[in-house]
Parts: sequence; C-alpha cells; structure tokens
Amino acid sequence: MKTRIDLTAEQIAHLAGLVEGRISTHQSVLEQHSHDESAFVPVLPSAVVMVQSTEEVSAVLAYCNSEKIPVVAFGAGTSLEGHVVPLHGGVSVDLSNMEKIIEVRPDDLCVRVEPGVHRMALNAKLANEGLFFSVDPGADATIGGMCATGAAGTTTVRYGSMRENVMALTAVLADGTVINTGRATRKLSAGYDLTRLLIGSEGTLAVITEVTLRVFGIPEKMAAAVVRFPHLTDGVAAATAIVKMGIAVARCEFLDAKCIKYLNSYDSLTLVEAPTLFFEFHGSPRGVEEDAMSVQEIVREFDGTDFEWTSEENQRRKLWSARHNSHWATLAAHPGKKSVSTDMAVPLSRLAEAVALAERTLSQHSFPHSILGHVADGNFHCQIITDPAIKGQTEEIRKVVSEITFKIIAMGGTCTGEHGIGAGKIDSLVSETGAEAVDVMRSIKKALDPNGILNPGKIFTLAD
Amino acid sequence: MKTRIDLTAEQIAHLAGLVEGRISTHQSVLEQHSHDESAFVPVLPSAVVMVQSTEEVSAVLAYCNSEKIPVVAFGAGTSLEGHVVPLHGGVSVDLSNMEKIIEVRPDDLCVRVEPGVHRMALNAKLANEGLFFSVDPGADATIGGMCATGAAGTTTVRYGSMRENVMALTAVLADGTVINTGRATRKLSAGYDLTRLLIGSEGTLAVITEVTLRVFGIPEKMAAAVVRFPHLTDGVAAATAIVKMGIAVARCEFLDAKCIKYLNSYDSLTLVEAPTLFFEFHGSPRGVEEDAMSVQEIVREFDGTDFEWTSEENQRRKLWSARHNSHWATLAAHPGKKSVSTDMAVPLSRLAEAVALAERTLSQHSFPHSILGHVADGNFHCQIITDPAIKGQTEEIRKVVSEITFKIIAMGGTCTGEHGIGAGKIDSLVSETGAEAVDVMRSIKKALDPNGILNPGKIFTLAD
Repeated sequence: MKTRIDLTAEQIAHLAGLVEGRISTHQSVLEQHSHDESAFVPVLPSAVVMVQSTEEVSAVLAYCNSEKIPVVAFGAGTSLEGHVVPLHGGVSVDLSNMEKIIEVRPDDLCVRVEPGVHRMALNAKLANEGLFFSVDPGADATIGGMCATGAAGTTTVRYGSMRENVMALTAVLADGTVINTGRATRKLSAGYDLTRLLIGSEGTLAVITEVTLRVFGIPEKMAAAVVRFPHLTDGVAAATAIVKMGIAVARCEFLDAKCIKYLNSYDSLTLVEAPTLFFEFHGSPRGVEEDAMSVQEIVREFDGTDFEWTSEENQRRKLWSARHNSHWATLAAHPGKKSVSTDMAVPLSRLAEAVALAERTLSQHSFPHSILGHVADGNFHCQIITDPAIKGQTEEIRKVVSEITFKIIAMGGTCTGEHGIGAGKIDSLVSETGAEAVDVMRSIKKALDPNGILNPGKIFTLAD
Repeated sequence: MKTRIDLTAEQIAHLAGLVEGRISTHQSVLEQHSHDESAFVPVLPSAVVMVQSTEEVSAVLAYCNSEKIPVVAFGAGTSLEGHVVPLHGGVSVDLSNMEKIIEVRPDDLCVRVEPGVHRMALNAKLANEGLFFSVDPGADATIGGMCATGAAGTTTVRYGSMRENVMALTAVLADGTVINTGRATRKLSAGYDLTRLLIGSEGTLAVITEVTLRVFGIPEKMAAAVVRFPHLTDGVAAATAIVKMGIAVARCEFLDAKCIKYLNSYDSLTLVEAPTLFFEFHGSPRGVEEDAMSVQEIVREFDGTDFEWTSEENQRRKLWSARHNSHWATLAAHPGKKSVSTDMAVPLSRLAEAVALAERTLSQHSFPHSILGHVADGNFHCQIITDPAIKGQTEEIRKVVSEITFKIIAMGGTCTGEHGIGAGKIDSLVSETGAEAVDVMRSIKKALDPNGILNPGKIFTLAD
C-alpha cells in the first residue's frame, strides 16, 4: 500500500449509511485526526467516521475491506510514535463516542468498558467503589488506545502494564468478524493468547471495541516521598538497588534537574532543581512505614539527600499530577515547539550506564532535552525539543535518537518499553528482535488482514 | 492430518545423521514418550530424537517439515491434557538433554536457561544467589514445558504465571527458522507480543529452545499458616474475601477433606481431615505478621478455626512439598488407577458457587474424587480417579467433566486456568471463546506451520 487512498463520494455515502450519517470531511475534523502528540508530519484522513457500537465498527470494517480502504482507529490522539497518523489516507474510525463504563464488578475486581473511556474518568467512577485501575501513562488516554499501544505508567513496577491488566477483549477483524478473547478470570490458559497478541498490535490486527480490565482495591495507606541526588546516575543506581532489595515500591520515578524546573514552572511547585526520585508506597500503615524507612536507608548510600515523605492526600496527588504533566510542562517551556520522546528500556543493571550514554550523546547537540523515567522498570524517556519550522531538524534529532537506540539494543535493551513502534521505529524493531521474528509478525498480519487495510505503515512495512 | 505417520528406515537414518545418532525406536523409549500424567490413551511415536542444541532442533524440524512428519516436543512428560501424546505418530523430540542453566544474572533479576531445565534444579541453583523462580506447578516440570502450557502454581496470586515471568524466548518454527522474541527487560512494547503468543501454544507453533525468566529475591521473611473450615464453601469464600481486601498473600491454597487425608498418608502428616486453607506470607518481618493477623481475622468470620502459623523453615517446606505432591498422593491412595484433573477458573465472586456445583455433580457419581485449588486466583481442580482397566470409564468421567465445564463457561469461567487445552478440551475452547476466535488461532497456526507438523490434534482440529 504505497499510495494515498481518497474516498469517492459514493464510498462516503455508503459509509454514512452504515453509521447514521456520523461521517465528516470537514477540514477541522480531518486535521484533528491527522496527528498525535508526536512530531510526526500530520497526514489528513480522507474522512472521519464516528462509531457507536461493535456492530457499526464491524459494518465499517467489512465495507472498507471490500473496498481496500485503509482504516486507522482513533481514541484520544495521545500516542507518541505517530500511531494514529493515517499515512495512506482512508478512514479514521473515531471511537471516542464509545465511552460507556458498561459494568463495574467490585466482587470480581474487574470492570468492563467501551474503548473510548478515558483512564481518568474510569478512575473517578471506580473510586466510589474503593477501587482503582492502575495503568497511568502521562496522558489521559483512552482504554482502547492504551490496549493498542501496550501502555504502562508510573505504577507498572507494582501493578503491571496493560499486558497484565487486560483480562478480555472484544475486537473486530479487518473483514468485520467480531471476536471475543479471554475471560474475566484471573488465570487463563485456553488456546493462543489472542488478548495479548492484540495488546500492543497498534491497530494493525483488529479494532478493539470492548475491554475487561483488572482493578485493585485502593490500598489502606499510601505515602509519597521525594529525594534528591547530586548526579543523574546516582538517582538511577539508587532506584535499581531498591528493586533488587525486593522492596515493593508502588511507584519509583526519576526526573532530571531540567524536568523539575519545567514542573515547578508549570505546576507552581518549589522543588529544588536537582536530579530527583519520586516514590510511592502502598500497603498497611506499618508496612508503608517500614518500606519508606528501608528506601531512605538505601538512597542515603547513593548520596540521596533531603528525603521528604508525606501521606497527606492533597500533597501526594499534587506530586503525581505534576509528574503526569511532565510532557506538557516541557512543551510549555518551549512555546510553538514539538518534541521527540524516546522510550528505551534496558536490563536493570545497565540502566545507569544507558542513561549516562543518552545524556552524553544528547549533550553533544544543541537541542533542549530532559530525561525522566520509570527507573525501577529500567525504562527511561528523553524528551527532545524540535522546532517544526526548521526544515530537517526533527529528522536530525531522529538520527541522534537512532544512534542511541542501536547502542541500547546492543546492551540487550529495547527501543520501546511502553510507547510502541508506530511509524518511527520500524528499523529499530528489526535490529532488536531480528528479521525472522518480524517476518513472523508480518505472517500473522497477512493471515488476519490480507488486504493490509488496518493502520498500514506501522510496526513494519508490508510488501505490495 | 488424519492418519498415523510412521517413519521409513531412510527417514530414520537421515534424522540420525542430524543428531549424531541420538535417535531411538526401542519399545521402552517409545513407551516413555507415548503419554503424560493424564489418563489419555498412550500413542507411540515412530521414533524419539534426543536433541542437544537450537541448531539440531532447527535441522530436525526443517527435515520433518519437508517430509511432513509430525513433531511433538517432549520435556518431563508431566502435562495433564495429553499434550505430549503423539496422536499421529511421527517424531517425539526430547529436549531433556538441553538442561544447561546458561546464565544467572542477579543484577538483572533474570536467568537464561535451556528448555530441559527442571524447575526444582533451577531453584536449587538460584538459592545460592538469594534468588528464586516463582512458578511452581505440582510437578517438577521442565521450563520449556511450562512455557508451552502457560503453567502457573501456588504463588501465581503474588508473582504471576509463566505469562508474567518469561521475558524472552528462542524458538524454532516448523520450517527450521530460529526466532528470538522479547528482551531481558522488565518492560517491552516492541511489535506483536510473540513471547506470549508462544506461551500456552502447546508446541503447535514452535519448539522453544531457550528461555529468559524473571526471578525474585528470596523475601526477608516467609511464614505459612493452616486453617480449617466446617464446609468446603466457607474456605473458598474466605479466600475470596482475603483477595478482595487486597492482602498480598504469597500463596492461598484450598484442599478438601479427602485431599488432606491423602496427604497425611503420603507425606506422614497429621493434619485434621477437614476442608483446609494453606497460606503463605512474604515480606518484611512486621509486614508478614500484619498480613497474618489480618487473614486470621477474616477467616474467623467464615468459621475458620485452629489458625496455626509457622515461620519455622522445615515445617514450612514440608507443608508445601506435601501440597505439591497432592496429585501423586491421590494416585497413591488408588493403586493402579489414573486420574482426570479438571482445571476450571471463574470470576472471583463465582468461586464458591462453582466449587459447590462441581462437588454436587461429582457426588452424584461413584468415582472417587477430591477438590483443591489456587482459590485466590479463582482456579480449582477436581481430581477424579479412573480405572483404565474398565472400558469406557474414563470417557464417562470426561462426559461428567464436560457437563460441569459447560456450566462453568456459562458462569463466565474458563475450561482451563493453567493446564491448557491439549487433546481433551477442544470443544470446550470453542464453547468458551467462540468459533471466530478459534478460527483466528487456526489462521495463525496455518501461517506459521502450513504443513501442520507441530503437535497436530491439540488445541483445535485442522481441516486436511
């Protein structure tokens, strides 16, 4: 699929008939569906279809498949690798109207939702039942989008990523076939794990239309802590030591001095601008206290100072809200600019070295950048500012990132811990897992979507 | 593939040349590879090949593929759904010589092993480093087999099943292609999750030849507890309540009075013969004490009595060793017999009802049976004794099991939490996940193994 597909008037009329007229070709709507949060060049879809049910998605896909029209599923548009950019035109299928929380099941510790539900709205609802959904990327993404990218967040170290928290899916294949995968059970070994095959498949295998998520009881006690370090690598090494000791931290996030500066400005905080770890502890009151004490002892060995902890709810929330805003805080400090976010992860023992390598390489260039990460998981992000007005700058940054990425892969790392491959890391994926494994992915794609209509140009290239 | 394939002398000679002569057609060797721990009727392979490397597996598979010879991978032969039974003859590829622990990486909390490594040998080695591998099915299975069936165990409630603990794989496809999936990183979102597609694929997609596993530090403090209940369902309901309270038990196992009786006899224990929960707590000394106190309070509400706990290491080990022996303890009480083990799992809130349903249905028949389970995960097993000498008895038991299974599926449950589909639950899988999802599994199978040589007759049927 090399060319751009634009819909004919007849095709638009046919699609309109499938969704009670909820189709748009207005410029502003097309623009809204042309990009995500990344610096990828926007591409307009030919039309945007607003779907409201699994049946509508099925009808739209069956038709697009018969007409070989590319389809990109769209949720909140908060992805970071160009996932929702309709590289080949066609239809953007917007699922944001499918935002019902279908069923909260406190006794089964699970919830069934439509894919357009946002994670924050879900948690607002769950809080009434004393429950929470743990996966928290920075953005207020939709659950469907979080499934599609295999999202993770600050609590993954304790509660897992989407892979560990999705129990069951309803999804529509390219030809309109509706499938159900998984069950609302905590264990399952029934045939191929299609649930986890779809998680992280970035809209290339199916469109997800219903999700059953695992949820947790809100812990009896939660407390946050902040500690500062003289150097970037001290903080990272301290986090790794804590994980190795088996202390069950609920969150453990690293932010460099520049991140802290941006957060102070964006969220009116007064944190000292130094490399910093944010922690959170969940459990029984005594357990939390014991964990915090153990962590304080360890960070001291890595020259961590000014350990401050709080179980005051407002302060705790403010801290994490600031952490979740870091992407926008960084952009706000650079008005009119965009950013390239890396997402490498390495084996735990290589993290300090990997972060130092990234910092050293980026320092040789003049692009503003900051580093932060889910360090207890060995996963870190460099947010690099690019000026879309300067021709070739984003490409230059991508070249530098690529150089770092290949070194990280050589260290046994991955090019992406949680953002996915999208349009930007197709070569990195081959380098990381090998052409043979990518060929297996391609075979699966061809078996399930022989016309290649679902999100073409993402994860891998398909021969025509 | 409907017929039995027997190898020609020429084919045997060719295979012998690929593995330095390590091929056998001795009756005793064929018999050893004709069955697993289940009551499925044994079927002899035509030959058994002992492989020693990924390269040899690749050569053997490439040849078998070109000759359309069925291949079944064999590890310890401890599966419970006939997985390793070579239904269509052909070659049993025995990986038990591939038992090197290649690399222990304490600083990365992972270990790289060959597939023939047994879980107990691995843990003996890891203990030297203060580490443990958490997944513990009853049997001393091989790591490769545990990957293939998506195994779980008594600690899954805390540490996850194989799905959560395998980081990376090397595997050989039907045509001999070697692929690498995943990385030794704690997070990964790089393309389709081939690691988890292979886990639980029961040898039908590839033969696993190397595994990178996540390991954990041995907790500072471990303590076990035992508590008795007047009725089966009280114990189950207590376990569910504990999970809902968010108490991080490390193990929570239910055993009915008959199980306890068999264990007493097999392991020289003196437990009171009543429905019983076995618990384990992991953590800091104060955390463990606090958890045990909370659990004691909850079980009291469900008429749990005689709460006894111990942190004495020998007693703790003895308790869990007995639990792991329950399969053999039950068989030992019925000399010359075999057993059919069910493996249903339900949403947490339905567990007491599901166990009561199973108990009620089985009580209407005369087959000896006992019930036990990983109740904090909603997963339970009925072990039903069958006499292979009585014609049709196993089939009759399977009919009763099937009746229970379809009711469990109607309750939102699964036919298998950890044992897999194998040869015995092909119909249940369709009923559970739908013909459309099974068709997707079949498409993936056809894309990766077009000749259908890998473990034919398991998970689903393939049209010729």
